[in-house]
Amino acid sequence: MSGCDQPGLLSLELAQQRLLALADSSPINDTEFVALAQADGRVLAAPLVAGLDLPPWDNSAMDGYALRLADWQGVALPVSQRILAGSAPQPLEPGTCARIFTGAPLPAGADTVEMQENVELDEQGRVRFLQGLRIGQNVRAQGQETRLGECVLPVGTRLGPIELGLAASLGVATLEVRRAVRVAVLSTGDELVEPGQPLADGQIYNSNRRLLIAWLQRLGCEVVDGGILPDDLQRTRDALAALGRVDLILSTGGVSVGEADFLGIVLREAGELAFWKLAIKPGKPLTCGHYQGVPVIGLPGNPASTLVTFGLLARPYLLRRMGVQRVEPLAFEMPAGFVWSKAGQRREYLRARIEQGRVVPYANQSSGVLRSAAWAEGLAEVLEGRTLAEGDRLRFIPLSELLG
Amino acid sequence: MSGCDQPGLLSLELAQQRLLALADSSPINDTEFVALAQADGRVLAAPLVAGLDLPPWDNSAMDGYALRLADWQGVALPVSQRILAGSAPQPLEPGTCARIFTGAPLPAGADTVEMQENVELDEQGRVRFLQGLRIGQNVRAQGQETRLGECVLPVGTRLGPIELGLAASLGVATLEVRRAVRVAVLSTGDELVEPGQPLADGQIYNSNRRLLIAWLQRLGCEVVDGGILPDDLQRTRDALAALGRVDLILSTGGVSVGEADFLGIVLREAGELAFWKLAIKPGKPLTCGHYQGVPVIGLPGNPASTLVTFGLLARPYLLRRMGVQRVEPLAFEMPAGFVWSKAGQRREYLRARIEQGRVVPYANQSSGVLRSAAWAEGLAEVLEGRTLAEGDRLRFIPLSELLG
Repeated sequence: MSGCDQPGLLSLELAQQRLLALADSSPINDTEFVALAQADGRVLAAPLVAGLDLPPWDNSAMDGYALRLADWQGVALPVSQRILAGSAPQPLEPGTCARIFTGAPLPAGADTVEMQENVELDEQGRVRFLQGLRIGQNVRAQGQETRLGECVLPVGTRLGPIELGLAASLGVATLEVRRAVRVAVLSTGDELVEPGQPLADGQIYNSNRRLLIAWLQRLGCEVVDGGILPDDLQRTRDALAALGRVDLILSTGGVSVGEADFLGIVLREAGELAFWKLAIKPGKPLTCGHYQGVPVIGLPGNPASTLVTFGLLARPYLLRRMGVQRVEPLAFEMPAGFVWSKAGQRREYLRARIEQGRVVPYANQSSGVLRSAAWAEGLAEVLEGRTLAEGDRLRFIPLSELLG
Repeated sequence: MSGCDQPGLLSLELAQQRLLALADSSPINDTEFVALAQADGRVLAAPLVAGLDLPPWDNSAMDGYALRLADWQGVALPVSQRILAGSAPQPLEPGTCARIFTGAPLPAGADTVEMQENVELDEQGRVRFLQGLRIGQNVRAQGQETRLGECVLPVGTRLGPIELGLAASLGVATLEVRRAVRVAVLSTGDELVEPGQPLADGQIYNSNRRLLIAWLQRLGCEVVDGGILPDDLQRTRDALAALGRVDLILSTGGVSVGEADFLGIVLREAGELAFWKLAIKPGKPLTCGHYQGVPVIGLPGNPASTLVTFGLLARPYLLRRMGVQRVEPLAFEMPAGFVWSKAGQRREYLRARIEQGRVVPYANQSSGVLRSAAWAEGLAEVLEGRTLAEGDRLRFIPLSELLG
């Protein structure tokens, strides 16, 4: 993994570009076929091509009567058949009309539908059309929405409920998707204890592992839980060797040049590491490299830093590994509901809410805890070197755009 | 289920209010304990209360040296101990300082940390502080982020990766959550065929079932797949009787006053149904009622109508059944990148994207297909009676806010 070193601070854009370039250089090319019921969150490996027209035949947009307009001389027409959705109509007898319901196929020969509200039946049950008619009215034409052979979803589409419904509407029951990215999640540090265990002096609970595992699963990744690495060189070596085949090693906390950083030592024994200082806050230190050829991303260990760096850097990287082209979240320019008087050297991502149409940050933006993020609805971006008065506009990224 | 009838068109707000009132009248009160690994998407049934301070003890925000400021007379201090994160320090010997690393507990007696960049070591290994010191600097005080006994997440919180990380940071390994809402999904109509099956004349593929099942699962619901009901009275009765215990019957297509609507007939035999005409487009007809006391919501069958009515009405209803208080999606006022010259009687929800900061709708807003929604990033709301020039502002609801 070259091109990672950088003296001074690295801009977010440049870090994102480098990570995406790295992702493009090691795409997950293996594919598999999955049933629609198992495909939510997966990424298309082959385009979804329409195998039929939608709608598959001309059909009625209304409950009413179908006729051939040229047959109509202004007189009442007898009803020659009744067509429900799901039935296969007979060709329309000349000089007649057909009772028809919404979604039912038009009979051959018919070209116009009048809604039932605009007709009267006479004593013989013939249909009197009360208004002028226009050819093609209330007819949904075959193929008007999708044509046989059209590409409906391109390669690289992330599948969600809508895309699965769309595939179903074309009769497709299984889809070719990329193999899920296998991500090993490691935490480092003797101070970390898993929830549910007692806490000894100097120890804290490991929150990042739970955050990242749930998040990775939402992104459609397969998680290999590497647990908490001990502060011991040989046991760290053994733990890494035991990971098996993964596509990314994702660690939080402690991949640094520090003397007590055993993960860093082991990774460098059989790989390469670069240390980026990102021009963002929270989230300055990021490690990027490989271990025996497997890409490594080391996120900072403070939970809010983990959140911001995963959301803005690791998430797009992972989506791109899966072949997703458009990996940026939606963001919205919103007026500030606060004052920012001290311009910073790093771009700040404030955990914030929208209140009365304005961005309001959580009072305590310490990078140590997730409370700010649990309270927040999104990340508000204060650019480096910038001050803000109330009402000045800044970018707001909804958390829903990042978490899924 | 009373109060459902309404002549004329029903506003979206009123329909939402009625559904939320119905949800409040039949909350899911059963609870269960789940491990954090199984809790994503669930709803808290008991508040998450901090069982410890966060941070649990004063700790260092930097790699550096800890001292008691009152001990420092401007001279170099010897280093009496070395404190790594995870260790339990000895009380600080008077007249000394301690080597300390980020996150490590302050030794008793110390109150100040200087970062390593601002010190020099002399020949005896004593630490010379190069700048003035301020008491408490670089110290993260015990409980500064959360205090023992504080409510960190209230009842009714939807759990996601962030909330799970927060619970983990407090040492909590299992959470009390509401039982998942059990939703029976029914489709009606002889014209519907499941994907993967051949299509006979007049038939179409069932897309709503796949859309709704995936969506309900994302909302944390347990889905009972009722399949496609046949257009036959006795078999429809049997299918409903076989559903077992569910909290909601959700159907698409065909619950109407229509003569061929067997589901409607059976539901009314043992329940009550009301038909709402909503002042929205797509999505006018909505059915609301109960079958043997089990709430029933009938969505319109056109896929785009199903999408809009599920997202704007059934979704908040279901979240409220689970006890979520805040059920509205985030929405953003954005400038129109299009012209809307014909004011409508119903509020329109256009499947739209943001392009160059402006809302751009999909060209074909037919309610028949999901292609518009797969292309879209959100729903753009054009109010009833309103026209729009380019640049006029309208509300935009990101799909990510609705789908999760």
